[in-house]
Amino acid sequence: MSNPEASRTSRGPVIGVFDSGFGGLTVLRELLPLIPGAHYIYLGDTARLPYGAKSRETIARYAVSSAQFLEQQGAELLVIACNTATALALQDVRLAVTLPVVGVIEPGASAVAHAAGSAKDVLVLATSATVQSHAYHDACLALGLRTTEIACPLLVPLVEEGWGDHHVTKEVLRIYLKDALAQCTPSAVLLGCTHYPLIKHVITSVLRELASDAAVIDSAHATAHAVTAQLGLNRRGHADVPATFECFATDSTDKFQRLGSSFLDQEIDSVTLLDLGG
Amino acid sequence: MSNPEASRTSRGPVIGVFDSGFGGLTVLRELLPLIPGAHYIYLGDTARLPYGAKSRETIARYAVSSAQFLEQQGAELLVIACNTATALALQDVRLAVTLPVVGVIEPGASAVAHAAGSAKDVLVLATSATVQSHAYHDACLALGLRTTEIACPLLVPLVEEGWGDHHVTKEVLRIYLKDALAQCTPSAVLLGCTHYPLIKHVITSVLRELASDAAVIDSAHATAHAVTAQLGLNRRGHADVPATFECFATDSTDKFQRLGSSFLDQEIDSVTLLDLGG
Repeated sequence: MSNPEASRTSRGPVIGVFDSGFGGLTVLRELLPLIPGAHYIYLGDTARLPYGAKSRETIARYAVSSAQFLEQQGAELLVIACNTATALALQDVRLAVTLPVVGVIEPGASAVAHAAGSAKDVLVLATSATVQSHAYHDACLALGLRTTEIACPLLVPLVEEGWGDHHVTKEVLRIYLKDALAQCTPSAVLLGCTHYPLIKHVITSVLRELASDAAVIDSAHATAHAVTAQLGLNRRGHADVPATFECFATDSTDKFQRLGSSFLDQEIDSVTLLDLGG
Repeated sequence: MSNPEASRTSRGPVIGVFDSGFGGLTVLRELLPLIPGAHYIYLGDTARLPYGAKSRETIARYAVSSAQFLEQQGAELLVIACNTATALALQDVRLAVTLPVVGVIEPGASAVAHAAGSAKDVLVLATSATVQSHAYHDACLALGLRTTEIACPLLVPLVEEGWGDHHVTKEVLRIYLKDALAQCTPSAVLLGCTHYPLIKHVITSVLRELASDAAVIDSAHATAHAVTAQLGLNRRGHADVPATFECFATDSTDKFQRLGSSFLDQEIDSVTLLDLGG
């Protein structure tokens, strides 16, 4: 499935997807069954991850270099499959390339608004940089929602350590969520980082323990549907042609294959090492 | 104290010190009172931190660019104040610059050998990349020690979250140290990451709880003395001239000033933003 030569002969669109690392593969996982015949070029900027605690200027520089690489590779549409990069660099990326760009923030905000229904209080869990940007606050406000944003900087390291189901992760979530629930009574919780879907069940379980019945929403599914909409419904055909993908990473390709497979929920056959000059 | 113009008029040596981020400031803290009259140029490669989970090739590329910058700034001696960069890139750095280079691994190994005394079992706590390099194992073996190396990838994020004294950090340490003490009975434990001295008291407390009376050693002090030795005793004068320093960082200088002050244990007046092209 990840044979690029075979894939490039398919008739679907070529879509570039990038993230600071592995998290964006949760978005690719949603995209693969949705647009048959598409070819995906995924880039994980693993040499410079994580983005979540870095400054706007640095994140924008990194995101633009990833976007330009994917444009050069022939992408017709670009997905920023990273909340931090979308929150801080969506406009910079749009100015730097000539192709349409879909981020995860607006689809995520729409999805949480839908889940919240007539209730208007939502909680966003994200990295420090995403929270400080208030990008979710602004996108949710435009949809008439009241938003509380909580930074959860330890969740990415815990997921990457493979401690998703660990009692330490549960305890860290208790601390973050108790703090959040002291500030609001949300009817929906948005996972504002592409790593968090891997511990969605733990987040839901801790919310229930803390007597919250909030729905837990991730932006991966909503983002995949936003890509379909951007392409136009007439591009949704090719149901008999499977989607294909190829992967690039800026650091160890071995680690990308190993860790990435759990995010994508399928084997990654090969990864190409890429030097973005960092 | 961190006024570079005033400082450059001092008669002591100019010493470059670099790390992926803030941890190396624990080495600078030891150096400041030791070599009066010296001027230190500290570089934190914060745009690309952490190094601890990245590949040898990437870490070497980053370390060489930091070293070359410090050489261009007029450093006469270079300190790699980062265990991961020393473990994986000491030789690359020595080949890339013409000035003497001191790393933290050999001084750390000597210090733990001294602390272990006639007992020969030592435990090294470090990042994944440092452990995988077995640099401490090799340096300790050369001194006749038996070494167990344990990767502790969550400790850096916990320290950077400001959770040094938190019950979650204590629980994470219990997990790491129980695992380690099932494999060895060390007479000394070496903190093989420059972030760990900030939680030395918590590490010692958990060791005692687990019935280990091992001495806890960090390489910062030993590295500072190795720098003195490298410079020759005749350069140890200038007791009436205070040491000075200036700081460069590749990401947010605000964050560097704020977080760095706790590592250095004194105020950092100003930090200069640097673009290493990443």
